[in-house]
Amino acid sequence: MTAPILSRKPPDASLIASLARLLGERLSTSAAVCAHHGRDESYHAPHAPDAVAFPRSTEEVVGIVKLCAEHKTPVIAFGTGTSLEGHVAALAGGICIDMSQMDQIIRVSTEDMDATVEAGVTRKRLNEHLRDTGLFFPIDPGADASLGGMAATRASGTNAVRYGTMRENVLALTVVLADGRVIRTARRARKSAAGYDLTRLFVGSEGTLGIITELTLRLYGVPEAVSAAVCAFPSIEDAVNTVILTIQSGVPVARIELLDDVQMAAINKYSKLAHKVAPTLFFEFHGTPAAVAEQAESVKAIASEFGADDFSWATTPEDRSKLWQARHDAYYAALAMRPGSKGLATDVCVPISRLAECISETKRDLANSPIPYALVGHVGDGNFHLVFMIDPDRPDEIAEANRLNDRMVARALAMEGTSTGEHGVGYGKMDFLLAEHGEAVAVMRTIKQSLDPGGILNPGKIVPVQKLQP
Amino acid sequence: MTAPILSRKPPDASLIASLARLLGERLSTSAAVCAHHGRDESYHAPHAPDAVAFPRSTEEVVGIVKLCAEHKTPVIAFGTGTSLEGHVAALAGGICIDMSQMDQIIRVSTEDMDATVEAGVTRKRLNEHLRDTGLFFPIDPGADASLGGMAATRASGTNAVRYGTMRENVLALTVVLADGRVIRTARRARKSAAGYDLTRLFVGSEGTLGIITELTLRLYGVPEAVSAAVCAFPSIEDAVNTVILTIQSGVPVARIELLDDVQMAAINKYSKLAHKVAPTLFFEFHGTPAAVAEQAESVKAIASEFGADDFSWATTPEDRSKLWQARHDAYYAALAMRPGSKGLATDVCVPISRLAECISETKRDLANSPIPYALVGHVGDGNFHLVFMIDPDRPDEIAEANRLNDRMVARALAMEGTSTGEHGVGYGKMDFLLAEHGEAVAVMRTIKQSLDPGGILNPGKIVPVQKLQP
Repeated sequence: MTAPILSRKPPDASLIASLARLLGERLSTSAAVCAHHGRDESYHAPHAPDAVAFPRSTEEVVGIVKLCAEHKTPVIAFGTGTSLEGHVAALAGGICIDMSQMDQIIRVSTEDMDATVEAGVTRKRLNEHLRDTGLFFPIDPGADASLGGMAATRASGTNAVRYGTMRENVLALTVVLADGRVIRTARRARKSAAGYDLTRLFVGSEGTLGIITELTLRLYGVPEAVSAAVCAFPSIEDAVNTVILTIQSGVPVARIELLDDVQMAAINKYSKLAHKVAPTLFFEFHGTPAAVAEQAESVKAIASEFGADDFSWATTPEDRSKLWQARHDAYYAALAMRPGSKGLATDVCVPISRLAECISETKRDLANSPIPYALVGHVGDGNFHLVFMIDPDRPDEIAEANRLNDRMVARALAMEGTSTGEHGVGYGKMDFLLAEHGEAVAVMRTIKQSLDPGGILNPGKIVPVQKLQP
Repeated sequence: MTAPILSRKPPDASLIASLARLLGERLSTSAAVCAHHGRDESYHAPHAPDAVAFPRSTEEVVGIVKLCAEHKTPVIAFGTGTSLEGHVAALAGGICIDMSQMDQIIRVSTEDMDATVEAGVTRKRLNEHLRDTGLFFPIDPGADASLGGMAATRASGTNAVRYGTMRENVLALTVVLADGRVIRTARRARKSAAGYDLTRLFVGSEGTLGIITELTLRLYGVPEAVSAAVCAFPSIEDAVNTVILTIQSGVPVARIELLDDVQMAAINKYSKLAHKVAPTLFFEFHGTPAAVAEQAESVKAIASEFGADDFSWATTPEDRSKLWQARHDAYYAALAMRPGSKGLATDVCVPISRLAECISETKRDLANSPIPYALVGHVGDGNFHLVFMIDPDRPDEIAEANRLNDRMVARALAMEGTSTGEHGVGYGKMDFLLAEHGEAVAVMRTIKQSLDPGGILNPGKIVPVQKLQP
């Protein structure tokens, strides 16, 4: 959908002056900085904020939010700007809070296998920090996103089939509310029945209910043995049926990723690899050496039923790293196939029994698509993406890709699936939300209005509410 | 804590008449039926509702809730009445909605490994229904509770260490709101980033935000191999240290349960078993035959470091059933040790690194306790219970047990744990909620007031709000 039209007025000079007093040089009104912060990695048109704040503590975030609340000015939290549905667009102007300087890893407990970090720490930096501990954090969207942003968008990635998404892996959050109050949503126990699950309410709320400043995350032991493999299939249906049977057989695969022939050509070129250009699955197995060998045998047997080529193993850690970096770069690789293009990424997720049908129908619908696209997916979860490589200066292409996506979403909803498995709503999927949730959207709106009565937190995202009173 | 004092007046005769027109004989005002529905399995004093409704459909629940909303009369959902913190007490009178006649298993998908059930279906009935499908539902509080009640209290049990709690295993809910609107919180996709996580908001809300009428649940494949064992230890510290090292080693145990010597004596007597009366762990391993053997070997090696006896294996399905039924009956077994007693069950849960210290300090604090108690715990999660067997007619015993529990909760909170791992808040733990969550309780109250402005849903539970206007 196109961006909702919100009224926009320049912020009060006194607000900017107060923020500058609070933050000094860590408040920027430079046009370039503002432009950078109104843009994500998708085709969505940028909407720059009026100023960008770079706080270094929860207390500074409180100060910013209180000033903005006083001036009825929007506040938009910003992690790394790698989202895909216009989440960071300052549709009504206002102050962007860039969390990148809140980058402290506060504590790591190897005994409890958890860590507390500031929201600006990225997933790769956390894992580098953990390198000598024998622990890792599994959630891995393609980008090296900030953990605060990943929580805010309920991110997942290639490991979700085994380790869950941010929903399952955030133990507690520190959140600054719309009026500047600070809450901690939970303590560090692995489970709790103590009241409403505020942690899960803020995970996926995209900065519309509060600003996440700290997170306590579950960590996992680095598996004793890891093995990864690539395997090409005669058709995409064969690959998908291998996935379905693997999941239904209960093999605890750590990763099972689908890439179509176009995507394989793209990553071969972008990441300098030489895989066969055919529908392909990337696998990874985690466990003890015996368990990994057993899992791999089970999956090879299933794959061979569907006419798969031999498994090509990535045996060294370096080879595995290269393989998965290529997978994580799939989006950028696709866009590089059409220089100057921007991505319109679809994100449906369906019950696994409907996945083959959903992909086949989608491929049929796209047979005559004039816009190039690649298919890639976290198929173990029933989630797959098409990346349409669109020319951002051609509204006809954007419109056509949106029509194709509309039909995909309708198809996924008819199969009891969701319009977005992991990218979130932003403003790009607000229309779908109503189709997907019906009356439940009214409940979301009630919650939004009760926690942010002034409507200052990331206005125009997730649920439409009344405009700010400027 | 004692029950909050809420004003109470008899319901309007016209409300009772309207409900009777709607439900016929499925509305009861009999004193015995009302008394039964105001009571749970704990020491908490009963508070009977004024009438009990037995709906058979979501539409009938809507009818009941709308009538009660019109008459500003409390509505309390009731599953099997097996909760432990006064959840079902009709503190302000009103209408109890007994869900037991909403007992249809609506659909089971073996392909997607999920099922949709009405809220009154119990966990055992679901598993009996699944017997020939190769699937099972793992969450198992001691009682054969209703799945709606289990979702409402965010229940867990012995399998949570491997399979998670109700939080992780509810995919979607159908909920009747305070004004009679009906929402479905999600579809059937395994993951979704489509808006606020209403599913998790209603899981654990104890009937204070809406009435759960249907649930879609994750199911799991019955493991190819299962083995269970019992193992006694020289001391409770040795048993706990075995648990900690097992979890930290990443062995994916399916169950790892601690019982102290008192509890072992109790279950020997109650369930006619002949286990050694000593601190004991019950284990279960799930997986392929090779994986199960490997897990068992790892855990045996750890246990022997801590001076454990040999593992005593429950090899047949019948033996395993008997073993786990005895574990599930631990609460009743403890109470049977002191005829006429009622249970006051503590429920702290701490990060696993603090578990040994938490249990040891607690045992020291209890050394001179005049009230008999047994210790039992889902220790893989850091969660354990003391069951105080109190004489319900002796306020001094209730007061003393509450003082001991207060100190346990303070100890758990100081260790970054929670006052309740799985029993929930009801009215019994409302005071602790504030100590545990601070300002976050105000957020819970805001949400409660926004979704139930009239305060009719299970008043006096979780968060104190203004009284009903009678």
